[in-house]
Amino acid sequence: MFNIDFEPVGRRGQFSKDQSLLDCARQLSVDLVSICGGIGDCGRCKVQIIAGQVTKLTLEEEVSLSTRELEQGYRLACITYPLSDVKLHVPPESLTAPQRTQVEGLEVVVEPDPLIRGLDAHLTPPTLESPQADARNLWSALAAQGITSGKIDFNLQQTLSWYIRQHDWRLGVALRGDEIVAVGKPSTRWLGLAVDIGTTKVAGYLLDMESGKTLVAKGMMNPQISYGEDVVSRIAAASKSPVDAARLQSLLAEALSQMSAELCAEIGGHPTDIVEAVVVGNTAIHHLFLGLPVKQLGLSPYVPVVDSALDVKAREIGLHIAPGAYVHLLPNIAGYVGADHVAMLLATRLADMDGTALAIDIGTNTEICLNHKGKMTSVSCASGPAFEGAHIRFGMRAAPGAIEHVRLENERLEIQTIAGEPPVGICGSGLLDAVAQMRSNQILNRGGKLVTHPLVREEGDRSEFILAERPGLEDITISQKDVRELQLAKAAIRLGIQALVEAEGLTEGDLEQVIIAGAFGTFINVESAITIGMLPDLPLERFKQVGNAAGTGARLALISKTEREKAGQIALQDGYIELAKVPNFNRKFAEATYL
Amino acid sequence: MFNIDFEPVGRRGQFSKDQSLLDCARQLSVDLVSICGGIGDCGRCKVQIIAGQVTKLTLEEEVSLSTRELEQGYRLACITYPLSDVKLHVPPESLTAPQRTQVEGLEVVVEPDPLIRGLDAHLTPPTLESPQADARNLWSALAAQGITSGKIDFNLQQTLSWYIRQHDWRLGVALRGDEIVAVGKPSTRWLGLAVDIGTTKVAGYLLDMESGKTLVAKGMMNPQISYGEDVVSRIAAASKSPVDAARLQSLLAEALSQMSAELCAEIGGHPTDIVEAVVVGNTAIHHLFLGLPVKQLGLSPYVPVVDSALDVKAREIGLHIAPGAYVHLLPNIAGYVGADHVAMLLATRLADMDGTALAIDIGTNTEICLNHKGKMTSVSCASGPAFEGAHIRFGMRAAPGAIEHVRLENERLEIQTIAGEPPVGICGSGLLDAVAQMRSNQILNRGGKLVTHPLVREEGDRSEFILAERPGLEDITISQKDVRELQLAKAAIRLGIQALVEAEGLTEGDLEQVIIAGAFGTFINVESAITIGMLPDLPLERFKQVGNAAGTGARLALISKTEREKAGQIALQDGYIELAKVPNFNRKFAEATYL
Repeated sequence: MFNIDFEPVGRRGQFSKDQSLLDCARQLSVDLVSICGGIGDCGRCKVQIIAGQVTKLTLEEEVSLSTRELEQGYRLACITYPLSDVKLHVPPESLTAPQRTQVEGLEVVVEPDPLIRGLDAHLTPPTLESPQADARNLWSALAAQGITSGKIDFNLQQTLSWYIRQHDWRLGVALRGDEIVAVGKPSTRWLGLAVDIGTTKVAGYLLDMESGKTLVAKGMMNPQISYGEDVVSRIAAASKSPVDAARLQSLLAEALSQMSAELCAEIGGHPTDIVEAVVVGNTAIHHLFLGLPVKQLGLSPYVPVVDSALDVKAREIGLHIAPGAYVHLLPNIAGYVGADHVAMLLATRLADMDGTALAIDIGTNTEICLNHKGKMTSVSCASGPAFEGAHIRFGMRAAPGAIEHVRLENERLEIQTIAGEPPVGICGSGLLDAVAQMRSNQILNRGGKLVTHPLVREEGDRSEFILAERPGLEDITISQKDVRELQLAKAAIRLGIQALVEAEGLTEGDLEQVIIAGAFGTFINVESAITIGMLPDLPLERFKQVGNAAGTGARLALISKTEREKAGQIALQDGYIELAKVPNFNRKFAEATYL
Repeated sequence: MFNIDFEPVGRRGQFSKDQSLLDCARQLSVDLVSICGGIGDCGRCKVQIIAGQVTKLTLEEEVSLSTRELEQGYRLACITYPLSDVKLHVPPESLTAPQRTQVEGLEVVVEPDPLIRGLDAHLTPPTLESPQADARNLWSALAAQGITSGKIDFNLQQTLSWYIRQHDWRLGVALRGDEIVAVGKPSTRWLGLAVDIGTTKVAGYLLDMESGKTLVAKGMMNPQISYGEDVVSRIAAASKSPVDAARLQSLLAEALSQMSAELCAEIGGHPTDIVEAVVVGNTAIHHLFLGLPVKQLGLSPYVPVVDSALDVKAREIGLHIAPGAYVHLLPNIAGYVGADHVAMLLATRLADMDGTALAIDIGTNTEICLNHKGKMTSVSCASGPAFEGAHIRFGMRAAPGAIEHVRLENERLEIQTIAGEPPVGICGSGLLDAVAQMRSNQILNRGGKLVTHPLVREEGDRSEFILAERPGLEDITISQKDVRELQLAKAAIRLGIQALVEAEGLTEGDLEQVIIAGAFGTFINVESAITIGMLPDLPLERFKQVGNAAGTGARLALISKTEREKAGQIALQDGYIELAKVPNFNRKFAEATYL
């Protein structure tokens, strides 16, 4: 029996040499993607061998895996067997949705350069001979540690005297620059909160401010979704009245407060131990979160109120962490290229890359940045909520029962649902797969029209592709209109890529590396995306799926002053192209819809 | 006929050479003090001739006025007649109470060194070619004026975009250091608010932040008085529960907001044009105004939460001026020597004086500071609310009908009431006069006991001095207990003076100058105060009554960065003596009660 260790999920068990790594995973409830049923055919159950011996590489693997993946020790779990204790890494894209939450992200290791310094202070009780003010007393106690004076957060002053007497003149102090932002018990572990607010989903991370380590992470829905699925409808909602604007703001603040409490509860901490937060989001979300006006963001020329980085007291926006804590907002670049894009660029290190590289964060709004020999240019594309399942007849978000992977070969249709449950709908990556497979199998023509085919049902004007028959229930299908929605979404993204490349006098073939960030981008099959023309037809090894990079960028900016400065540099350095201003936009857009 | 001009009240009229300056004043409703009825005897209707010719100095005047007053052109209005057009200055102590509000104060002229810079900004509407964020656009518009970047108050950012579009891209901007704290119409006259919050009364001043000029002033009662007349009872009230503490805080904030609105209304301005405020008060009031805990202030060793100067956003304490405005609090020195004392020292320039000088601010709590050859030491004395009329049977505040001046000669009793109305009670200065006159006329012995006298009514154990008979109403009297209250108050003050002087190895005779500040201090008769032993027996010309100096200090700190720094220096420089720690305190206190 061998010990098999799945990382980073941290599940371990003992297995024999006759159990494939996929079998091991299943027994440990590590839900690896597997469409072909474990015959080494679909190539989706990739795992990376970190340590230990496994069976020899098979021909199927040599076909399925890229050269780089092979070099890095990637194998297909379904046809690989252990020969010793094995430690392996499961990349996020190999996990089915419930485990692949939006918090999974790129891990970038940086030297902590903390914004918060934790200190202990032993005060001397005042006497009639030395009736020092409490604040002065506190500074005196810190003087031995080289800190002689500074500011104390005003709200903190309102409770300081009570606190030091309650705690017998011994305190833990959180110092930010020259300002004391919180006090607690001696040796308090000060926490930081990093949040990536997406239009649809929110990813939150709790970090130790001293070590810089991520302690726990959590995903949730953006509660503003009740005001509209895309930012345009939320801008309209918030512009209706100050009450609506305030409601949209407080919805987010309350949700983040709740998330902070839940994250803290998981480690036995308290939200008031959170002494710094970094929040990223697109420009509209950034403004809605801060209660900044958004009306002008919805009208040409789409200007933000503010684009530079901001430090705002948590209490000013109703975020219930330490009342003296600051919330740091990374800079925005433009009305539709926000702080989340800056965070993504920070995490992917795109700015540090040589040659020509592209980073793309696919979402309801998709931002793309090209770094060509150090010159960075970004573009924003309204890809819409189709990938989140909106405007798609059987569309749904990535949740149990959603069809997430589709394979069609010789009229044999294979589907995989999240958590293996009976199909209830189709999520973004499933739609992408399905349309790609339909195109490969000539069920769709180049223009995206459904042709006559055994799997296509035609009723009068309407035709639809049958994805899953459900006896007693309506069949899950993909309609002509659904295909059209996806075409519009992918055209927007492709046009963005082309606009950036052409602005530098390049062709898409010049792209040496394409980084795909964002939760959705992690789950898609790059080949499918190439098949439908969403991504350019480049060798697969040029693509890298990195997960939630915006969340990672927020975490970097949370724990390191250097990284925060770097983010500011990126925002300054990054140029911006307005897609609507590209010459012959309409013609090019129409062309980009072709499959 | 001659033009007679009374300053600073600004009343003018034409009069003949047969009308005394007192007659002129009365016809112009300038209410000069006059106890003797205009026979040059009481010496209270002092005026200073600034320009023009008047009749020759009389013997009465040479007796009544000090050498310095004579040198400075002081005359008694009742026996001085014009010989040409005359311009004269009426010192506050010569005015009866309704005009001598607590806002009358020392005028100190300083070069304005403004904290707020008013600028106009003409923004360029953004275009698709140049979709600048509104904030960046504003900084670009200011760049021509040498300001390239800085902060914008967060609350202001929440309305900025709306505002600049409403006002056609043209703004007036209030810049404080590198922070924009308010925007308004182009050429907005930015205002400043200076407030002296006394335990009993509040004095507010509205200033033009550019010129530094005081535009209008207003007095009101401190609404916290419903929670107790002295700070000790308010500390107790606020320590009861957080709700009580919050109520005490909001009472003051609301009253100051109301006062701001009223002050602005008088000049056709708006409270949101107030972009900076300076508030002074004693340490307890300072803490209660900011919502800082006060419990520890009421217990030995009486420590404040904070003693250094503070800048707090107006909105954080519920003060309704420009939301981005800062409220600056001058530093405190100790638990019972507060920012109002620092402001008083700033205004009186005590720190700049050579030799040995004393400044004393008489109030419910009396603070005294000695400057001996550059070494400054302060003391705080709990003089109590007797001067405000509290704990005195017929005591009342300085309001119409209050007996404010008393003269007794050869059993002929003369009283003067505020506004000449029928007597309804006795205010602090009247009580001081009465007790002094009773002592001079041997109606009181040294220990303060009422002796048998035609004006003293004895009923069993109780005896009282009849001050005013009121047919059909109860007579206004001064009881043995009232005398005792005054003795305790004056003993506290005298002991404070002695403690300071003795700590430097001096005697009271070494005091070369005694500055008496505060509204009450302005109205008292210094001779009476000497008679009862509240003030040391020094030549009258060594005393100077300067009115509300704390309010003046607040105004100086409002309009000048230099003055604000000076206040910080004063607070650092000023030592502090705890009166309760003076050796043989009890014996000395008992001695100090002697009249």
